[in-house]
Amino acid sequence: MTIRECADFLKSRDGFLILSHVRPDGDTLGSCAALSHALNRMGKTAWMYPNEEITETLLPFVKPYFAPDGFEAQTIISVDVASEQMLIGNSEWNVDLCIDHHPSNTHYASETCVIPERASCGEIILDVITELLEGPDYEEAQLLYIAVSTDTGCFCYSNTNSDTFRSAAKLLDAGAQLDSLNQLLFRKTSVARLRLEGMIYSAMTFHFDNRVSVAVVSREMLERAGATEDDCSDLANLAGRAKEAVVCITIREVGDHVSKLSLRSSSSVNVSDICAEFGGGGHAMAAGCTMKCDLEEAKSRILQAVEPKLP
Amino acid sequence: MTIRECADFLKSRDGFLILSHVRPDGDTLGSCAALSHALNRMGKTAWMYPNEEITETLLPFVKPYFAPDGFEAQTIISVDVASEQMLIGNSEWNVDLCIDHHPSNTHYASETCVIPERASCGEIILDVITELLEGPDYEEAQLLYIAVSTDTGCFCYSNTNSDTFRSAAKLLDAGAQLDSLNQLLFRKTSVARLRLEGMIYSAMTFHFDNRVSVAVVSREMLERAGATEDDCSDLANLAGRAKEAVVCITIREVGDHVSKLSLRSSSSVNVSDICAEFGGGGHAMAAGCTMKCDLEEAKSRILQAVEPKLP
Repeated sequence: MTIRECADFLKSRDGFLILSHVRPDGDTLGSCAALSHALNRMGKTAWMYPNEEITETLLPFVKPYFAPDGFEAQTIISVDVASEQMLIGNSEWNVDLCIDHHPSNTHYASETCVIPERASCGEIILDVITELLEGPDYEEAQLLYIAVSTDTGCFCYSNTNSDTFRSAAKLLDAGAQLDSLNQLLFRKTSVARLRLEGMIYSAMTFHFDNRVSVAVVSREMLERAGATEDDCSDLANLAGRAKEAVVCITIREVGDHVSKLSLRSSSSVNVSDICAEFGGGGHAMAAGCTMKCDLEEAKSRILQAVEPKLP
Repeated sequence: MTIRECADFLKSRDGFLILSHVRPDGDTLGSCAALSHALNRMGKTAWMYPNEEITETLLPFVKPYFAPDGFEAQTIISVDVASEQMLIGNSEWNVDLCIDHHPSNTHYASETCVIPERASCGEIILDVITELLEGPDYEEAQLLYIAVSTDTGCFCYSNTNSDTFRSAAKLLDAGAQLDSLNQLLFRKTSVARLRLEGMIYSAMTFHFDNRVSVAVVSREMLERAGATEDDCSDLANLAGRAKEAVVCITIREVGDHVSKLSLRSSSSVNVSDICAEFGGGGHAMAAGCTMKCDLEEAKSRILQAVEPKLP
């Protein structure tokens, strides 16, 4: 479906329930809430399925759009959800329309509007709202700024493109408060997170002429920092900052003698292959696996597996 | 001067020497180099005054534009330089044209093109080049992306506005390599810097119900991390990340019993007033001072001065 067809479909229906994805991020939540608000502006009933996995930071923005108990949907829409398994609630939904930007979208819905060139789903919702209502209002601009900025790491990740910047310009012109949102989403963090980063950077090790960086995160560190799960987002970015590292490894203690590893590669090393040796997988440049051993043992095993693959 | 008048002036002259500012940043350097390249494309002679204070990261991009020994200028231009005292080389230059975005520009040049609404000087140079040559080529787009992105903290600082995003879109369309430049400028850093951040975060303290954060940076820490001055940029941002802090203090040991303090405020506390008590100054929300004492003594003195000013 094109943006125009997608807009026509939305005009022709009512009683919307909008589904985000499991382990929700700012893109799925901001996009769902903005679409819900825009449909309300058109005089339609629209609610988000209550996604209870939401972080504390995003909750106040999105909670007002959560459907009340007993809401009976006539039209089910999913936004930023690549496959049925990723749908919030259950995977048995009969989705009428899916709006998404993942190239891997499985076309599980009756109608699908996928634009894989877009860095974030928020940019597609912006185009849909522009088609429906000539442009976003302040509330929708705020929600879509959250969507676009979080999915691009505040315009720093490699998915950012010139359309992303043009969308961001439109959102600011519509009133999105860049400074307060950036402070909240990117620039400020908890004391617990700062303490945790202090421990992680201090314990970070570098191997094979700095070509491999390793960050370890133990349960004891989390406890000592007073950190909760909300303080642990994107921890894998920390080891990833090492300039000369071609493989960046983050190992987190998730239970007694259970370590979860996340590997990133910035070059020719296929970390998916390495993780497969331990029963894990992922993509060539970002993959993971779980080992039944403590942090030190996990580190030693993974370094041994990585060394022969280095260029 | 308007952009058009500025372009006409450049068309009418030749033999350009382009001046950046002391303690140069990406904006002044990228803007000067891009303007130099564009003037060359027009068949004119143009060089930058060699700014030797440049960081290692930016040197390879800018060095090719440094004037050869003995170059005799006919026209002197300054870019991103707010006052004569900030001119590289000396403050006695007879500047023919100043292109700048600082609202505080002192109009020291014969002709001045100041657009204070622009977040970076790079955006103004982009408009000038668009007027002169219909748009930047690849090389100019790269240099101007460095200018715009560094002056806005990769589009995260509060100066970022919708025109900034529109300029960035044009630069990407002209070929600027967002991913490789962002990796270099924002996402990757040295092992020494990571070690240093580990020490700084670990030693960071929080006072008065977390309303004040204090980072200390000793010479011993720098030595232990193997850090050079290149690893020390924007250290004041680290204390600034503390969410609840209304005053963020960074204290750096710069000599025997000499401490340099940098204060930032995110609210109603005027840190310029506080720094004035110790012979320093600055702006209401960002100020500094120097104390003739060691780090611990400096910390104790500044906390004592800050406490009564807290809301």
